[in-house]
Amino acid sequence: MAIILPMKVSELGEFGLIELLSGIVPQGGREHKVVAGIGDDAAAWRGDGFTVLATTDALVQGVHFMADSPWWELGWKAMAVNLSDIAAMGGAPRYALVALSLPADTEVDNVVQLYRGMAELANQFNVAIVGGNTTSAPVVMITVTVIGQAQSEGMLTRSAAVPGDLIAVTGYLGSSVGGLMMLTHNLRFAPETADFLRKAYLQPQPRVVQGQLLVRQGVRAGMDISDGLMADLGHLCKASRVGAIVRAGQIPIHPTVKAAFPEESINFALTGGEDYELLFAANKETIDNVRNSPEADCPVTVIGEIIGGSGISLLGKDGMPFRVDKKGWDHFKKGG
Amino acid sequence: MAIILPMKVSELGEFGLIELLSGIVPQGGREHKVVAGIGDDAAAWRGDGFTVLATTDALVQGVHFMADSPWWELGWKAMAVNLSDIAAMGGAPRYALVALSLPADTEVDNVVQLYRGMAELANQFNVAIVGGNTTSAPVVMITVTVIGQAQSEGMLTRSAAVPGDLIAVTGYLGSSVGGLMMLTHNLRFAPETADFLRKAYLQPQPRVVQGQLLVRQGVRAGMDISDGLMADLGHLCKASRVGAIVRAGQIPIHPTVKAAFPEESINFALTGGEDYELLFAANKETIDNVRNSPEADCPVTVIGEIIGGSGISLLGKDGMPFRVDKKGWDHFKKGG
Repeated sequence: MAIILPMKVSELGEFGLIELLSGIVPQGGREHKVVAGIGDDAAAWRGDGFTVLATTDALVQGVHFMADSPWWELGWKAMAVNLSDIAAMGGAPRYALVALSLPADTEVDNVVQLYRGMAELANQFNVAIVGGNTTSAPVVMITVTVIGQAQSEGMLTRSAAVPGDLIAVTGYLGSSVGGLMMLTHNLRFAPETADFLRKAYLQPQPRVVQGQLLVRQGVRAGMDISDGLMADLGHLCKASRVGAIVRAGQIPIHPTVKAAFPEESINFALTGGEDYELLFAANKETIDNVRNSPEADCPVTVIGEIIGGSGISLLGKDGMPFRVDKKGWDHFKKGG
Repeated sequence: MAIILPMKVSELGEFGLIELLSGIVPQGGREHKVVAGIGDDAAAWRGDGFTVLATTDALVQGVHFMADSPWWELGWKAMAVNLSDIAAMGGAPRYALVALSLPADTEVDNVVQLYRGMAELANQFNVAIVGGNTTSAPVVMITVTVIGQAQSEGMLTRSAAVPGDLIAVTGYLGSSVGGLMMLTHNLRFAPETADFLRKAYLQPQPRVVQGQLLVRQGVRAGMDISDGLMADLGHLCKASRVGAIVRAGQIPIHPTVKAAFPEESINFALTGGEDYELLFAANKETIDNVRNSPEADCPVTVIGEIIGGSGISLLGKDGMPFRVDKKGWDHFKKGG
């Protein structure tokens, strides 16, 4: 006899909900040739000539952005988060579909700006926007679906990390949440700092080129950082059934962010999210080859290693457990 | 110098907006091999072994359904409208992605019901639900993306109708809006009638098998009826640069709907929408072959013909212009 427990979505949480639902839906038979289903950054199945990648992600007003968000940047970001999911599999994005929900009194010029932002980034990676749908709604919601292809060499998945691998990230972490904090708390900085932070938050650059480079160099375990380093590394460890050691002192933080938020930047980098950098695990030689490739075009930093077991040990410079100082966050939560 | 006209989305309209936006987005270069882009029921591009079809459609609470809609049926319908877009191209649906936005206080059991409804229909057509995303939102919004493949023989498009073709539809028209009227106006009918109407509105059956049959029999001009016969035939005529004659007396209306709504049913059939039947154009012999095929498994009715020029002439039984009687609709708008 099934026991029904009345429970709200908020009590179960996003990841609990996904796990529950993945047990209900048809995940495909042998003829669907699914190689990555619910739970990875993008779905993947073997097509005739190559492996197809597909991902969908929604940005909702009041949840992911505020009513006064700039429209062009909103379009950019809606496309960027989906391209990042394809990058997280080491693939090439090719086609996009856009489902747009808008209040009827939205200015047409704002929608044009939104599409220009999407188009700018789509053009940058040669992605064709081939279809979609618009509908009215009480709030703005932008759902983008991107379809692409994996490289013939293989792809990055969350489940391929093995003990002994080093853990590395592209670029810098914590910049995006620095921008968010600046905008939501009206913090004042020098123009170049403000511009850097604003762009990091509103105009993230998906690591499409780097994702493909990783696969070509032999990396197979990887994902993008959307929820924050610690949360996303947790997902990777869980999917790979491994544990991890992270050295806080090695986490790359941009000098501008360090200077703007001297106390808080390490927390931003550990838990901030929305940087859309790549997090991956591989042996030292492979990571060196990635770093030394001209296509890397960004810092590649080792921040720890994969170990047996489960969970993440965060170590300070002295090798002792690093305590995440909640002060930085509380400071902002109090509106100070 | 560009002239900026301040205008709301509601003033421009959905189709005006789509036309405007399709001029902004990158529609792909030669290497994308796009064969149907923005403006058809689904996007289509040539893959390695076959032509890929992809479509995305959102159902929004308060716009497409009410807060008290049954969750299982909602899931069914969210899947059905997308499968219908693949059917409208004569293709086979294969994979689905679901982007679900929910208020945090939604009961988990309701979400489970929603997914069971989606899964039921997906299973019926052997569609694998391979990915997606859930996020919180002020209202429920379900965006489904379906990816499939066209048949090797070709596909249905809106732009392939030519003068001399007969116009035909599958099934019956107007049943869905009959169900909507019953539910929104608390109309009382005999149980079998109520059940028929309710199912027609909440559980439409996408014509996936019939769409494929059409293509195999040589039909190339077709689409599904989501906005209503007159509106959708208008889209088909515009895309094909032709006109049409429709004979009101030939439009198939189910006996149950005729009996339940003796005055209004012809208006329901002409303008009601959401029946998700197929509308297509072909020569008489082809249509006869479709009708006589055991796979048709539903009525196939000729309702008019494609002519040169533009616009749709709606003719009554006497061959004179048929006047759409607004009374049927006004009756309900007054809440009577």
